[in-house]
Amino acid sequence: MAHAILLIHCPDQPGLVRAVASFISENRGNIIQFDQHVDSVDGVFFMRVEWDLEHFVISRQDLPVFIRALAEPRQMTWSLHFTDERHRLALFVSKEAHCLYDLLSRHDAGELDADIPLIVSNHDTLRPAAERFGIPFHLIPVTKDNKVEAEAQQQQLMADHGIDTIVLARYMQILSNEFSATWPNRVINIHHSFLPAFPGAKPYHSAHARGVKIIGATSHYVTADLDEGPIIEQDVIRVTHKHTVSDLIRQGRDLEKVVLSRAVRWHVQRKILAYNNKTVVFA
Amino acid sequence: MAHAILLIHCPDQPGLVRAVASFISENRGNIIQFDQHVDSVDGVFFMRVEWDLEHFVISRQDLPVFIRALAEPRQMTWSLHFTDERHRLALFVSKEAHCLYDLLSRHDAGELDADIPLIVSNHDTLRPAAERFGIPFHLIPVTKDNKVEAEAQQQQLMADHGIDTIVLARYMQILSNEFSATWPNRVINIHHSFLPAFPGAKPYHSAHARGVKIIGATSHYVTADLDEGPIIEQDVIRVTHKHTVSDLIRQGRDLEKVVLSRAVRWHVQRKILAYNNKTVVFA
Amino acid sequence: MAHAILLIHCPDQPGLVRAVASFISENRGNIIQFDQHVDSVDGVFFMRVEWDLEHFVISRQDLPVFIRALAEPRQMTWSLHFTDERHRLALFVSKEAHCLYDLLSRHDAGELDADIPLIVSNHDTLRPAAERFGIPFHLIPVTKDNKVEAEAQQQQLMADHGIDTIVLARYMQILSNEFSATWPNRVINIHHSFLPAFPGAKPYHSAHARGVKIIGATSHYVTADLDEGPIIEQDVIRVTHKHTVSDLIRQGRDLEKVVLSRAVRWHVQRKILAYNNKTVVFA
Amino acid sequence: MAHAILLIHCPDQPGLVRAVASFISENRGNIIQFDQHVDSVDGVFFMRVEWDLEHFVISRQDLPVFIRALAEPRQMTWSLHFTDERHRLALFVSKEAHCLYDLLSRHDAGELDADIPLIVSNHDTLRPAAERFGIPFHLIPVTKDNKVEAEAQQQQLMADHGIDTIVLARYMQILSNEFSATWPNRVINIHHSFLPAFPGAKPYHSAHARGVKIIGATSHYVTADLDEGPIIEQDVIRVTHKHTVSDLIRQGRDLEKVVLSRAVRWHVQRKILAYNNKTVVFA
Repeated sequence: MAHAILLIHCPDQPGLVRAVASFISENRGNIIQFDQHVDSVDGVFFMRVEWDLEHFVISRQDLPVFIRALAEPRQMTWSLHFTDERHRLALFVSKEAHCLYDLLSRHDAGELDADIPLIVSNHDTLRPAAERFGIPFHLIPVTKDNKVEAEAQQQQLMADHGIDTIVLARYMQILSNEFSATWPNRVINIHHSFLPAFPGAKPYHSAHARGVKIIGATSHYVTADLDEGPIIEQDVIRVTHKHTVSDLIRQGRDLEKVVLSRAVRWHVQRKILAYNNKTVVFA
Repeated sequence: MAHAILLIHCPDQPGLVRAVASFISENRGNIIQFDQHVDSVDGVFFMRVEWDLEHFVISRQDLPVFIRALAEPRQMTWSLHFTDERHRLALFVSKEAHCLYDLLSRHDAGELDADIPLIVSNHDTLRPAAERFGIPFHLIPVTKDNKVEAEAQQQQLMADHGIDTIVLARYMQILSNEFSATWPNRVINIHHSFLPAFPGAKPYHSAHARGVKIIGATSHYVTADLDEGPIIEQDVIRVTHKHTVSDLIRQGRDLEKVVLSRAVRWHVQRKILAYNNKTVVFA
Repeated sequence: MAHAILLIHCPDQPGLVRAVASFISENRGNIIQFDQHVDSVDGVFFMRVEWDLEHFVISRQDLPVFIRALAEPRQMTWSLHFTDERHRLALFVSKEAHCLYDLLSRHDAGELDADIPLIVSNHDTLRPAAERFGIPFHLIPVTKDNKVEAEAQQQQLMADHGIDTIVLARYMQILSNEFSATWPNRVINIHHSFLPAFPGAKPYHSAHARGVKIIGATSHYVTADLDEGPIIEQDVIRVTHKHTVSDLIRQGRDLEKVVLSRAVRWHVQRKILAYNNKTVVFA
Repeated sequence: MAHAILLIHCPDQPGLVRAVASFISENRGNIIQFDQHVDSVDGVFFMRVEWDLEHFVISRQDLPVFIRALAEPRQMTWSLHFTDERHRLALFVSKEAHCLYDLLSRHDAGELDADIPLIVSNHDTLRPAAERFGIPFHLIPVTKDNKVEAEAQQQQLMADHGIDTIVLARYMQILSNEFSATWPNRVINIHHSFLPAFPGAKPYHSAHARGVKIIGATSHYVTADLDEGPIIEQDVIRVTHKHTVSDLIRQGRDLEKVVLSRAVRWHVQRKILAYNNKTVVFA
């Protein structure tokens, strides 16, 4: 049986928990999970509530109208989701295989709870990987000169396949501001450093040069500012003077794939609220 | 201004979130923090709700009566606390200083949010440490022969000082079942291993002999079964073949003091619900 | 240019570092990496030395004779390896795909530095995974009744393919003592718990029942005693009361694959010395 | 019985391990620990060797002459130490107590293997802490106007007490370039962030504003460039959206004290070689 998930953020005010809980209970929804957070500095209230629709008396079609009535007087920004609507992900890749293989094998094992209708790449390198898992592979080379057209092609593909979210699985191109602006909090990137340390290119080289004792990886939503979008998840691993740049790259791959997959999973499960360039993750 | 904290667990049933939220809101309490968990295997519902008493219309004295009315029809087990009632901790120690110093320096820095009216020890070793921080130190030697009397003396001290919770800060004696039974979920121990690995005596020696690559520390509530009470918190650190037993002991001390202090802090903040020999920690 | 790797353990005695270093240097080998460890409790000396063969004046064929001359008076147990001799791994699997995919995609990316001539399984489930990566897949069902024959078949396959090391990548069968005795420190298993906690079957269920706050995975060499062989590597991840058994299983998969691949990598690089049911890992 | 410790770095060249090992062995020193590292990018060789002096035939007085003979033809930079020469540490503090208490209680427990003849502070806040442990406390207020004189006073104190190393245990003043230049790799600082992220003032505020999911602490040698000296040790802890800036500050304290004490310990044990603004730590 499907569940409904309601995500809310709004100015903090008395009675919010009760208002939402009463609405659901009075209409015979059974609350399965209730998460709430107040940012007391900014005075913002966040909520994620998931309830069983089995005996719920309001139909899916009518639900938005009711939620709007709840939300408007309280200045709520909200979104409504159903657990039986499968998320549709597009994977963007370049030449590095590890994040792609990791996502595809999770998808194959039924762990990801989303569909992957296509893979887009600016190189042909990973076509065999895509073919191994039977996912259509679209080569769209990107150069300085053709960037506008290439992105138009990508947008068309996204539209054709009803894509909800783009996952940059080590896609080594920078999306234009125009592109990323059309996908707010719907493009997930994995950056191969512990942001805000070492943004931009070649972070493992920089980490090695700086002599850090721990390296990291960061998954974040893409915004117009490179590597500065809301951070979803980070993880780290110890390194020592023994490790060369290649060792950091190799060890980093294990971080990148795990951190990216966690972010994608939480995103698919609607556990993330982004605001003020940060995230609330009800993991 | 003080907050009220209500902890609840009960059989899972529809309408619980709403019932509690409505009760608080209708009486003009402003909910500050609302945490809820359902153990869907056992069908148990857990809740911690904290609300501002500023405009709350029910007095502290009357509050239990109202909560009882809410709780009884729903078979709720509950406890009610107020953030301006300072917790009173007794520290039990033996010869190892690190957990004691750590707790005392946190207390000194105002980090612990609890009073420490006394320290009890079966050895005189740490008297100078207690004196440095001006905390009364009670020496109660414990032997096989005097255990019953020694515990009676301890119980009397606890009663005299209105102790809420006993912290075994590397107290190397085993409490009798009679003793621990009178303090359910109110005696916090730190065990120097990653339980359930290496219970009992000399865990670092056992860890070294087994050749583990990670060691740990575990804080738990004391029950009649040695090292088998509900786990509150654990942490670990990597070790290698280079580390001798002494190295493990030394590194373990850093784990023990941090893990114990986290457990004590959460306990004092009423963030822990124990049930079925496990804990729900709303940290 | 190839390197030689010499692994030694012997009773600790003065002059060991010098004896080995002098032997290599006097014969014009350039030492690339020199790792040494003394277990001062057991009085055992361990060494791993890797040197460049470019100007080395002793031929590969003659080298063992010279090393024997060095080793015998000092009661050294030793083994000699060359970095251009590729390790040959057999992967044993059952139904779980994550460790297999992880190893195959590392192999595919050239990260593993070993050949994988075959995959052996007691179920047909993962045949498609093997086929995706073009590795021959051998189905050998194992029951109580056919275990002896099944293992004979496996041994034959190992011999036919010149296998150096067997990797149990979530192979859910217990090898017979006879089998494991013929592969001392050459069968690497991944156990899905933080050993010695939760050996045997269903460790995630046990971890959940015990209410631990951290779960782990352990890679070890297989011995006659189930889950009691020398530990090579372990890693852990935090869990909370929110996590169901399925969540632990899912999160554990990320640990298992990373821990197993690290162990396999170190093994292939000859960085592990096993003794006294423990390992020295010069990672 | 005392050990000698020899630290070396020099251009990489054949025969280095053998030259040092032979020198020690031929003079009847028994090597206890031998660590070596080659930075193959920069072509630099690093070594730490510790040997037992019991049967060593060269006297301490003569040893430097012999080492010089070994070192000069090989362009070795070296330093020689003896384990029975106790290190003398000065602790510099401001108002935060946690690192000070941590170091003093380790010192008190005999864990630190160094003397602490004095504590220097620019505020009187921590005088009681110093007095509790019986360590002389010197108040030297520092302002823009008196900085030169204040540092002259500090230098005089260091000279008077034969200080080897200065530990900045959350000393919130920036040392002048002149000051730090006279203590190369002998001033250890703890910075309350995961460097190079969030250098300078108020790193926890910055970390909170950026919405990172992990915070850290970094111990490093002080150089003329603020927070840019060679990193000795780092550690991290997970945080979530639930954590306020005060929570980060509180959790960070546990990192800071552990990270600083590890760095101090390795420094005292002569396990650190600094070069090229990085460290080799033979921990």
